[in-house]
Amino acid sequence: MSILRRDPLSYGWTIFLEEDFPSSLAQCPNDISLPPEKCPFCPGHEEETPPEIAALRSPNSKPNRPGWRVRTIPDRNAVLRIEGQLSKRGEGLYDMMNGIGAHEIVIESPDHYRHLSQFSRSEIYDVLWMYRERVKDLLNDQRFRYVQVCRNYGARAGARLPHPHSLIIALPITPRWVREEIARAYEHWQMKERCVFCDIIAQDEQSSRDVCVNADFIALEPFAARMPYETWIYPREHQWYFHDITDEQLQSLADILKRTTLALERQLGDAAYNLIVHTAPVRGERQYETEHVKLSAYYHWHIEIIPRTEELSGFEYGTGIYVNPVLPEKAAIALRQKFDEIDAEFQQGLLS
Amino acid sequence: MSILRRDPLSYGWTIFLEEDFPSSLAQCPNDISLPPEKCPFCPGHEEETPPEIAALRSPNSKPNRPGWRVRTIPDRNAVLRIEGQLSKRGEGLYDMMNGIGAHEIVIESPDHYRHLSQFSRSEIYDVLWMYRERVKDLLNDQRFRYVQVCRNYGARAGARLPHPHSLIIALPITPRWVREEIARAYEHWQMKERCVFCDIIAQDEQSSRDVCVNADFIALEPFAARMPYETWIYPREHQWYFHDITDEQLQSLADILKRTTLALERQLGDAAYNLIVHTAPVRGERQYETEHVKLSAYYHWHIEIIPRTEELSGFEYGTGIYVNPVLPEKAAIALRQKFDEIDAEFQQGLLS
Repeated sequence: MSILRRDPLSYGWTIFLEEDFPSSLAQCPNDISLPPEKCPFCPGHEEETPPEIAALRSPNSKPNRPGWRVRTIPDRNAVLRIEGQLSKRGEGLYDMMNGIGAHEIVIESPDHYRHLSQFSRSEIYDVLWMYRERVKDLLNDQRFRYVQVCRNYGARAGARLPHPHSLIIALPITPRWVREEIARAYEHWQMKERCVFCDIIAQDEQSSRDVCVNADFIALEPFAARMPYETWIYPREHQWYFHDITDEQLQSLADILKRTTLALERQLGDAAYNLIVHTAPVRGERQYETEHVKLSAYYHWHIEIIPRTEELSGFEYGTGIYVNPVLPEKAAIALRQKFDEIDAEFQQGLLS
Repeated sequence: MSILRRDPLSYGWTIFLEEDFPSSLAQCPNDISLPPEKCPFCPGHEEETPPEIAALRSPNSKPNRPGWRVRTIPDRNAVLRIEGQLSKRGEGLYDMMNGIGAHEIVIESPDHYRHLSQFSRSEIYDVLWMYRERVKDLLNDQRFRYVQVCRNYGARAGARLPHPHSLIIALPITPRWVREEIARAYEHWQMKERCVFCDIIAQDEQSSRDVCVNADFIALEPFAARMPYETWIYPREHQWYFHDITDEQLQSLADILKRTTLALERQLGDAAYNLIVHTAPVRGERQYETEHVKLSAYYHWHIEIIPRTEELSGFEYGTGIYVNPVLPEKAAIALRQKFDEIDAEFQQGLLS
């Protein structure tokens, strides 16, 4: 079993893998090309993966056989394991716990070569539906505080296989970045009695950083974007849990994700990127709640899409200060043009 | 001029570069090989760089001519500029300031091909001496709060040129990671009235994470190392400012750096790495001081050496949780063997 250890100087956690255990997250090769006939995620190779946890499949097809549209499996080389009791302990001034959690892979399409931007909106809907269902299911486990949904595209973004897939990782802790967002959002609430995310949306909608909007969602270039063309997608109405999303909102999210990933691809070519869902933790952050305010009042889930065109240097590692050669307002001008093209293609029925 | 913008959700800063301004930190190519005859850092090419700020050179040599051992120049593509007044302003809920700072390059050797691990200890001493003198000089500028010293080796670590060099970047803010260390160290002080770094050293010296020690310094594998073979070097006695280091301590630091970079190279081959100096800020962190305790009591400067063998995935970007396949205690076993070999070679006079 893996071990989680906490750094006493940053309160950041590291997962140390079991000995001789190849991880799907660590040691990423530079070249991840693989022909479909060798791909464990391709239809017909279902037996090369652990048995599926959930799948969207045609009525007559059988589990762990072809006929699926989206298929979720446990990662064979999971960084955290579901079996066992969570056990926390100290070692002098250090803190650690055993590697309890879950680590699943959502195989997003039977098509080995398909980019997310090439999915139809209804195919993206299926993927998002699967995210929601897996998160809901995993959060029933009282040991878990957070479920991280993320997608790595390309070797530079940490992907290990080219076949389109996402990761669902259930954690016994709230991730450091989410805790930081909560702490800042709590400070903002204390000063203003408003959600900081709602304030950001109010300030940025119809501003020079607004790139796309539909009934339920807005895509913005963040004011202090870390990477060129970094794009965040927010629900326009206050909503704290991603997994509370309705079917109708899921359709709307599929629409804006299709447009956004396609616009980014048209602007950046085949650039690697990470897609990360940030949502409120379900347990364990009581210190940021009072009689008068709950986390639900001031946390606001969102999706961060981070293109990985820049290499981090010692300056970023040392300081946490990013160097970004592209102003978000400049990125927005370029992206809005792509969004307009895409909109026209939808209207002409060239995209679905 | 570049712009600094602060993210309201993390309080992390991003430096946005001037338009059409190539940065030496951003957009790193995968291949940074360059023949000496085209290298602006090589002797004989001094006129291809801006005039030198400082140099260690032979008595009869002239500035901006060959004859130097270590040479510091302003970066032609500086991310921050020294000219102008610091001006802070808001934009609705956002915070920003103009890109005042300094960005210098320490060319560490006339030898284009030399790795830091191949420097003699007296050559490393010269480089460290230059670090100290540049930091001291820059901190005289009342606009600056922090000077970041770092070294990028290899394209994956963000280096853009193969010629051995370091960066010295003066900042009008305290870097986020240093602020976090200060906040945690302050909490520790409030509970224990002790320096958390001193407590770490006390717990880890002669433990299974201790890899090398000399008169003044200790090299440890951190308990929650983010990367395989990550190694930190601490002054054994409490000292808050790197730039307060004495000449004698500099010799001791050169000794442990020589041993550590050589041991890491023998273990990891030609792996890319970042070397980062963390030191106390000189101004601006008064909120972490009281009548009873100053920053100097609980901050402890140190050097972090971070091998860059792993690619960060969406999981790391989303959560701040690292996945490390090598336990620090395992890394320490391997490194101690290398340190023993190196020690023997010093005793035989094979290394200097």
